[in-house]
Parts: sequence; structure tokens; C-alpha cells
Amino acid sequence: MDKNLNENQAQGGENRTELEELGEFGLIDRLTESFSVHNPQSTLKGVGDDAAVLQMPQGQVQLVSKDLLMEGVHFDMTYCPLKHLGYKAIAVNLSDIAAMNAKPAQVLVGIAVSNRYSLEALEELYAGMRLCCDRYGVDLVGGDTVSSRAGLAISVTVIGYAEPQKVAYRGGAKENDLLCVSGNLGGAYAGLLLLEREKREFLANPKMQPDFQDFSYVLERQLKPEPRLDIVDLLAELNVVPTSMIDVSDGLASEILHLSKASDCGCMLYQSKIPVDAETCKALEMFKILPETAALSGGEDYELLFTVAQKDYEKIKDNAKIKIIGHMVEKAQGTFLVPENGSLIPLTAQGWQAFNKR
Amino acid sequence: MDKNLNENQAQGGENRTELEELGEFGLIDRLTESFSVHNPQSTLKGVGDDAAVLQMPQGQVQLVSKDLLMEGVHFDMTYCPLKHLGYKAIAVNLSDIAAMNAKPAQVLVGIAVSNRYSLEALEELYAGMRLCCDRYGVDLVGGDTVSSRAGLAISVTVIGYAEPQKVAYRGGAKENDLLCVSGNLGGAYAGLLLLEREKREFLANPKMQPDFQDFSYVLERQLKPEPRLDIVDLLAELNVVPTSMIDVSDGLASEILHLSKASDCGCMLYQSKIPVDAETCKALEMFKILPETAALSGGEDYELLFTVAQKDYEKIKDNAKIKIIGHMVEKAQGTFLVPENGSLIPLTAQGWQAFNKR
Repeated sequence: MDKNLNENQAQGGENRTELEELGEFGLIDRLTESFSVHNPQSTLKGVGDDAAVLQMPQGQVQLVSKDLLMEGVHFDMTYCPLKHLGYKAIAVNLSDIAAMNAKPAQVLVGIAVSNRYSLEALEELYAGMRLCCDRYGVDLVGGDTVSSRAGLAISVTVIGYAEPQKVAYRGGAKENDLLCVSGNLGGAYAGLLLLEREKREFLANPKMQPDFQDFSYVLERQLKPEPRLDIVDLLAELNVVPTSMIDVSDGLASEILHLSKASDCGCMLYQSKIPVDAETCKALEMFKILPETAALSGGEDYELLFTVAQKDYEKIKDNAKIKIIGHMVEKAQGTFLVPENGSLIPLTAQGWQAFNKR
Repeated sequence: MDKNLNENQAQGGENRTELEELGEFGLIDRLTESFSVHNPQSTLKGVGDDAAVLQMPQGQVQLVSKDLLMEGVHFDMTYCPLKHLGYKAIAVNLSDIAAMNAKPAQVLVGIAVSNRYSLEALEELYAGMRLCCDRYGVDLVGGDTVSSRAGLAISVTVIGYAEPQKVAYRGGAKENDLLCVSGNLGGAYAGLLLLEREKREFLANPKMQPDFQDFSYVLERQLKPEPRLDIVDLLAELNVVPTSMIDVSDGLASEILHLSKASDCGCMLYQSKIPVDAETCKALEMFKILPETAALSGGEDYELLFTVAQKDYEKIKDNAKIKIIGHMVEKAQGTFLVPENGSLIPLTAQGWQAFNKR
């Protein structure tokens, strides 16, 4: 990782064009002109009018979600490269559509920037957004670009589509359903710990070289997460409709509690089944944090957590992309982490308060 | 106007509940629970999952737009009551849908707040949003509530619907079309000047009493604008589809230039026809600002500016809600303000740079 990717990136390096030189409309044109249209059947009119004009694909319903990302709360310009930030801002929104078992088709992006940011810096941000849009076949159809007194705010609205009978809500899990996750957890949090350590050391000694050797995977989990849209396709291929679904943004514990509460169920999560990658374990060890703690409360892994009816067990049991980590029980039994010794530890959500306010 | 409606409102007065006490999900529940569903046919699932689920009305297209409002840039907590702010945040977005000659049905609201804001303060904000949603029959279907390091950011996405042949784009105006506006201009800017003067005086002498006598209309134009959805209904009744349309958010000059550019036309705007209300003129006089200057460059009036084909002249000519202020010409003729003496003054847009960065 390039240690020059720090606060100075907002300045845009050697070539700095002031935003005032372009004005609002010139800026929007400049930032959005290189995006291509992937979904001409639903995107009738994109950027450039008072509103985008969309057509819904025949027989489908529409999914709409939005996220607001604030500098200093959701990202830190000291270690988050603008291109990665743009990619991540789109990716985490696409993940919300994946979490409904649907496919995204359009995004709208609003940004608020102070004059600390140059045109070149914003072009980096949008280059990351475009990369993610192109990768997942999503159209940028609207934008709003305004001034902020300080810092950068990014607001993304994402729109997707699905056949109505395939939409997976949080509230559909039933007793005995299998609890599944699409990949390993805790990596994004391990990446964050590494980046924050480097930031402290960099602030103490700006000449230091970052020591990120052997940790490219967890850094990527933090800086450039991928929405698991491949899982939506996989489930369709396997002919499985999850009974409930959510994405792991706040940590496994918080998400399980959401599914349990919305579905009026309890849940047993088997500690030994929680997938944590070896590099993640190694990184966490340096910070004396247990792998299960990072998985349960770390957040930002953007894996899909879902429940599958027992009747579909045969369809998923041998699939390497789907890990069964527990099962739903009746509500009265409660929601627990079950360690190997068979004891029951009540699950509590520490996601938001503990981590998102950093 | 109550002079206590100042910065202290963020504190929530005597009853102050800290946001930390509720957590993110408790907060969203609390803020959104009292909103009702007005459009059950298109709003299948609102707040409470990873995404809202919508159904498009048969035979219609969808319009989507978003706006980002930043404290200190778009609003000033010194004089903008939170309830009015909530109302205005929704209203200006509904105006974007009106500007497509369409009707809004859903909004999603993201807010970023610092811990300076109490639950009670946010409830005031959402009470204003609810008032506007109820007035215009719009459903709140999604939300995101995050922390900010400083200040308040409000991000609104609005969704509306229209029959495809009735959608009015910016780019449809033709030579000889009549240029029309739905109401008087410059009032919102006059209101802003008054509020800023009171702020300066209040900061110099916090015991002063605001002198807003006789200016309730222009204050309301600034603090609580209404989207002109009645004009969308009126045009439907009159069986008129505007050839182009935009809402006056940045000032008449800027909007005329948008329509002209998008439509590949020129435009003649007759200065004597620009409607400015008498109270607006009186307020502007105190600041030695010409009415036409406020109308052309003030912005935030949220009236609809549209063009109508000559063949529809008879349908609109006697309607008190529609004022004909000019006509489109061929592009080569250019875009001009025409004073009574018949001279031609080139129209220039000073909207964004001059005002939105206040």
C-alpha cells in the first residue's frame, strides 16, 4: 500500500483544478460523463434532468435502499484511498440489494464536498464508483453535488429488481431453518485495526513505512469489500429461495438478532462453525482479539447471512460458498452462541455503538 | 416568528434524550413509526428491511431524484426551525418530481447527526417531514441514520410516477413555444435576506426582538416552500403537456438557460412579465435590490417554469395560476432578458456560485 495515499489525496496531487472553476453543473457533467448504461430496458433517462426516468422490468418488484457515508465516521481520509472509497460506497449499497436476494440496476449518488477537495480528487472517487458500477452492471442515473462546510459526505441510493416470490425479507425464518453465511468473517475488522495502528504510527512519525506485509487480504476486506451478488445467482441456480436474509454490515451478532427478532424466532449459532480466515486470525492475534469476537461484533464484512428451509438442505450442503453455522429455534428458547463445550452464551449486539462511532 | 427558534433547538429544550440511549435501530423505529402509508398499491414494504419493496403502477414510468442538504450551506440552524427544515427537505424533493410533470409517491430519508442533537430535536425534524408527506400523500419507505462529526446532513431520495407520454423533460422546448411560470419569484430570496439581517443583529445583541412585521409571506417562501403539484394536476385537467419543464431552485435565469441549452433553443424573457409579489418588492427595497435581480438570481422559489406549444395557448391564457413570461426562439438568436425599452440583455446564470455557497 502506497503511504502517499493519505490526507493529501484530497488536494489532487500536482494537478489541482478548483471546483469553483466548473460550477455545479459542469462538475456533475465532468464526473458522470464516462459512466455507461448497462440496463437500457429499465434506465430510460439518467443524469441530466430533474429526475431519472425508470421502467420496471415486467413482472418484477423494485428494491430501493440508501446509505449515507460521512468523513471521519465511516471513512478516514488518512488511510482510505479515494478510489477505494468510491468503490466501497457503491459496493455496500449493492450489498443491501443482494441482501433482499435481488440484483441491482441503478444508483444515484449525492456528494457534499468542501473546497479542500480538487476536481482531480473527485475524479478519483468517481473512478472507483465507475469501476464498481461496471463490474456489477449498474447504471449511475442521478446525482447531486453540493458544498459542505467541512469534509466529505457521500449519499448513495440503490435500486434493484427481483421476481416478487424470490425477495428475501428479514422476517421469514422459521423454526429449524438452517442459518448460513456466504464467507468468512472478521477480516474487515482486522483490516481496520491494522490501518488504525498505522495511522497512529504515521501521526507519531510521518517518515515511517507502513508494515502491511502478509495482510493484503484483510486490508482489501476493509477497503474494497465486494457485494455477494454471486450468491444471489448461485441461490437461483440451486433453486433455493432463502426464508430470510440480511448482509453482515454491523457484525454477525447484530445481524442474527435482526433476523431472529423480525422472524419471531430464536437462534443457535455454533461457535466452531463461524468461518474466520487464517490471515484474519493472524492479524487479530497481534491485537489480542479473539476471532469470534471480530466475527460477532466487527462488522463491514458484507457477507450474506440467510436462512434456508430444511427441505433445501441437500441443495446447499456441499456448496463451498455456503457455510451452515447454526439453526433457528422457537422464540422462547432465545438466541445463543454455543461454544464447543455446549454451554449457552446469550448473543448481544455491540455493532453500532461500539464501532460505527469511531 | 419565535426568536427562541435558534441554535438551542438542536438541544431539544427541557426534555433531552441522548441519541446513544436508543441506538441506531431504536432511533429509526422511533422517528418513522408515526408515518402512514398513502400508496399501498406501490409501497409493498417500507422501513425495516435492507431495502424498501415497490411496485410500479401499471403503464407508468418511475421518476427518481435525490438532494443532499448540509447544515451551514443549505440551512442555518440560527433561524431555520427544525420542523420547517424537515418540511422543506421533503418539499424541495417533491418539487423535482413536479418538475417532470409527475406525482411523487415515496421518499427515503438519510440523516447524519452529531451528538449535539437530541432525540426531541430529531422528532421535530421528522414531524415537519411527516407534515409534508401527509399533505402530498407520500410514503416514507426507507431511512439511514448515522453519526456525523459536526452538524446535520439530510439526504432525501424521492420517487414518483407518470404516464410516459406526460413526462416533461428539460430538452423538449421548440421555437415559438410559450415560456410560463406558475407563480411569483424572488420571495424566497427576500425572506433569506431578512433572516440573515436578523441573524447579524441577534449575534450583535442577543436580546433584540426580531422585526418581521409585514413579512410573513416572504419568510414562508424561504422557510416553508410548497412543491407545485397543483400545477401538475391543473395541466392534466387542461389537457396540456408542457414541452419542457424545470423547477426554479437556482433562480429564473439559471433555469431558463437549462431549458434553452437542453432544448437547443434560444429564449426571450420579457422583464415586465416577471411576476414579483408586492411584499417581496417592499422587502427587497430595504436591501436596495431590484425585484428582477431577485427573481433572476435569487432562487429557492420552487415555482415551475415550463414551455407550452402555441396550439395550447387558448387552454392556458386565462388561467390565473399560469403566467406567460416569454417565448422560445431559434438557438442562433440567443437567450435574452428584454426590458420595456426593447433592448436585449444576455441572460447569465449566477445561481449556484453566488448563493448556494453562503
